[in-house]
Amino acid sequence: MNRLWLECLATYGVAIIKEAPNEKTVVRQLGNRVGFLRRTTYGEEFIVQAKADAKNVAYLSDALPPHTDLPYYEYKPGCNLLHCMVQSKSKGGYNLLVDAFHIADRMKTEHTKDYKILLSTLVDWNDMGSENDRVFHNIWRAPVIVLDNEGNYMRINHSIPQRDSHFSVPIDKVLPWYEAYRKFVRLARNDAITFKTSPGDVLTFNNLRLLHGRTGYNDTDENVRYIVGGYLDWDIIYSKLRVLKTTTG
Amino acid sequence: MNRLWLECLATYGVAIIKEAPNEKTVVRQLGNRVGFLRRTTYGEEFIVQAKADAKNVAYLSDALPPHTDLPYYEYKPGCNLLHCMVQSKSKGGYNLLVDAFHIADRMKTEHTKDYKILLSTLVDWNDMGSENDRVFHNIWRAPVIVLDNEGNYMRINHSIPQRDSHFSVPIDKVLPWYEAYRKFVRLARNDAITFKTSPGDVLTFNNLRLLHGRTGYNDTDENVRYIVGGYLDWDIIYSKLRVLKTTTG
Repeated sequence: MNRLWLECLATYGVAIIKEAPNEKTVVRQLGNRVGFLRRTTYGEEFIVQAKADAKNVAYLSDALPPHTDLPYYEYKPGCNLLHCMVQSKSKGGYNLLVDAFHIADRMKTEHTKDYKILLSTLVDWNDMGSENDRVFHNIWRAPVIVLDNEGNYMRINHSIPQRDSHFSVPIDKVLPWYEAYRKFVRLARNDAITFKTSPGDVLTFNNLRLLHGRTGYNDTDENVRYIVGGYLDWDIIYSKLRVLKTTTG
Repeated sequence: MNRLWLECLATYGVAIIKEAPNEKTVVRQLGNRVGFLRRTTYGEEFIVQAKADAKNVAYLSDALPPHTDLPYYEYKPGCNLLHCMVQSKSKGGYNLLVDAFHIADRMKTEHTKDYKILLSTLVDWNDMGSENDRVFHNIWRAPVIVLDNEGNYMRINHSIPQRDSHFSVPIDKVLPWYEAYRKFVRLARNDAITFKTSPGDVLTFNNLRLLHGRTGYNDTDENVRYIVGGYLDWDIIYSKLRVLKTTTG
């Protein structure tokens, strides 16, 4: 099972594990099976649940437009694990997923000038806050579309609430960037697939390549949506895949 | 103290904390003060001590020529913490440290052709083994000297025992690369400073920029060299520095 899971994840960027037990440790157990979870500002695991005093938009019940997690890290987590323990019975709580490398390809073909703007404009990504009494102030400056030295897509950065109020570009670059970004956001929203995970589903996907989001939902006294999240890094996933290829032939 | 420590580390690439208590949790406590330790294949903390069944060269008492840790990760740990609890009373156990960005500068000036070879030749870095029953097979392919998109030094990769037996370059590139690498290694060895940490010293340095090593030593029944190690990432260090600048003015 591990090998099929990780190969799907590496190839398609997404895989859903079904029928996981209804235990809060599932994400940790999966992490340990691969190697170990990637800890972030928000801990080793985190609970996605609507809270009155939420410091992060994920912890509201509002809609979350498609985004990547933690663009404000030089090295953002490679892969998200989201274990659905309680799904919303309201009309909302649907997952959104879209392959942003594909969206970058569409930008390149359909809006070449805008594509180049998204490649070359450095954006400030930011997260200030605290978690378990640890205060943090994360910043990373990088374009929306990041290529490696060979011109391959390396990483997509996109999260509206985590874009800094600082935008360190000359004034004449601002409006063209917003216009290019709007096209990117619209293509992503239109191409996103929609589905609703069930209790026992662990949605896993590539955080460098895919955008994820959800539709807004309503909790009730009897039905409180509850997702356990965690991250894995590609260094660790590829290590495990190499070991599995040796041991499982 | 935190701010001075982290500013020295960020500016000079190295800082030594003195008079730490003789407790195995010092590295973890320092990590928690900044944010959290970076976990790797070798755990959150690791013990550098000579062992009979060592799977990693660090766990022998032999000399370790200057190197960087974990070049076989896409994202290798940004900063090493090495807490000396017991230092060797033998003639050895001296620390070696050298600024490899400076060595790269010297290569650029004194051996320009070789410098370019070290920039452009992809080397396979590798680590296979197991730790606490977790089998791993880490690989990352990158040059010895890595520049970012703006031409600044981003990272130095160098560790003789962790260079893969695979070397994926055309045959006519092999010898010129070895000749360039030999010059780099010699410059690094000649420029390395030598000192011996004492119990209570926590040696901290930038693992992307500096090479570190040690001279060989001999343990006795009464004197077993004992170092506790851990890592921090620059995302987390810079976050803490921003917070400290706000709160300490």
